[in-house]
Amino acid sequence: MHKLVLMRHGESQWNLENRFTGWTDVDLTQTGREQARQAGELLRASGYEFDLAFSSVLKRAIRTLWIALDAMDAMHTPIGLSWRLNERHYGALQGLNKAETAARYGEEQVLLWRRAYAIAPDPLALDDPRHPRFDARYQRIPADQLPATECLRDTVERVVPFWNDSIAPAIRSGRRVLISAHGNSLRALIKHLEGVSDEDIVGLNIPTGQPLVYELDDELRPVRRDYLGDAAQIEAAMQAVANQGKAAKA
Amino acid sequence: MHKLVLMRHGESQWNLENRFTGWTDVDLTQTGREQARQAGELLRASGYEFDLAFSSVLKRAIRTLWIALDAMDAMHTPIGLSWRLNERHYGALQGLNKAETAARYGEEQVLLWRRAYAIAPDPLALDDPRHPRFDARYQRIPADQLPATECLRDTVERVVPFWNDSIAPAIRSGRRVLISAHGNSLRALIKHLEGVSDEDIVGLNIPTGQPLVYELDDELRPVRRDYLGDAAQIEAAMQAVANQGKAAKA
Repeated sequence: MHKLVLMRHGESQWNLENRFTGWTDVDLTQTGREQARQAGELLRASGYEFDLAFSSVLKRAIRTLWIALDAMDAMHTPIGLSWRLNERHYGALQGLNKAETAARYGEEQVLLWRRAYAIAPDPLALDDPRHPRFDARYQRIPADQLPATECLRDTVERVVPFWNDSIAPAIRSGRRVLISAHGNSLRALIKHLEGVSDEDIVGLNIPTGQPLVYELDDELRPVRRDYLGDAAQIEAAMQAVANQGKAAKA
Repeated sequence: MHKLVLMRHGESQWNLENRFTGWTDVDLTQTGREQARQAGELLRASGYEFDLAFSSVLKRAIRTLWIALDAMDAMHTPIGLSWRLNERHYGALQGLNKAETAARYGEEQVLLWRRAYAIAPDPLALDDPRHPRFDARYQRIPADQLPATECLRDTVERVVPFWNDSIAPAIRSGRRVLISAHGNSLRALIKHLEGVSDEDIVGLNIPTGQPLVYELDDELRPVRRDYLGDAAQIEAAMQAVANQGKAAKA
């Protein structure tokens, strides 16, 4: 039996401003940092220890991991970073306010872009300064693998190889693993782990900053999953995420 | 031509209290955190970018690196951690105040323990709770490699293999490397890089929090070395380190 813990980063500046973030390297808010600290303290109080951690290369996930490891007095935990754990790339929507976009295109279109499994927003143009090919951290990635937009299916297709090649072998070898990532890259991972259908995965909301604990059997099939922490707080956090695409947000 | 940057961690709580630290996992003081931030800002202002960083598994070096990378807006830099970059193990002296130890044993003996190349303090007993074999992060290290005390020669002997096996190949492959470590593990590395004699290496003082830049040729021989930053500040920092073993410290 193996344990695996997933953590969605705490609140970022653009979560707060209700903007499409994607690969934009936005930092945590003070609230997000506090959520990360609480996640770390919860893990520590619950007796969790890790041999290895993974994160995307986006600072909101890395900072969440750093703060949580610090709170666990486990800063010496090795960290594997990969762009394959990045948030779904939101293409030309990156930087737009979700409520404004909903008011302009309609809630239905925004919900399609946010939640339809195979519909991607328009891509960033190749000469758009926001294109990841201009970012030094992506220089070693072959051009045909570097996304300029993604639907969730695309995200699944680049997350799963990293699971198969890096994370799963570490877990099989007995290492206790913590993953810090994003709403959609975690959704992609959970889809793969649990075999969730293309239709059902879009309805799965992962709260920020709440450690999600999987028990996996020897074939790495989930036997059990639980959020650590207070049930009412988790429910409120999931509802907040579900409400983000609504135009009439207060 | 390759560039390599070495950073000694900022002031720790036990630097401040003038105690022998060694492998004790003491944290940075606020001053130490500020030194790390300044080191990162200096590197950023000077145009440095890194493809890879290394640190010991001790939190004062890791935090120094985290703070510096954050100040450089480069949190996504991969970090390789190794116990081989740890501070010299100070054996039974760990935890003792340097001035008290000097008053009790004489400055000469303390200077021998601190600076003679091949004289190690008494080792920690195998059942001493401070022995590294009780620390989870050292569990995978073979018992015959795990130190319970070290002289500088011992430190050199476990730093150099990590240089040869991990750091040097990365530099040769064109990666720009930053190393965050400790007074004696950096001294060990510099001894190896520059071919400093056993006698001369003990007189080399490395200031805390000042990035030390090496230019290396294709054989990784140093062509040039320079501290980044203000010369007077660097001199004062080196003098402060040299004075730590004196009994009459104010």
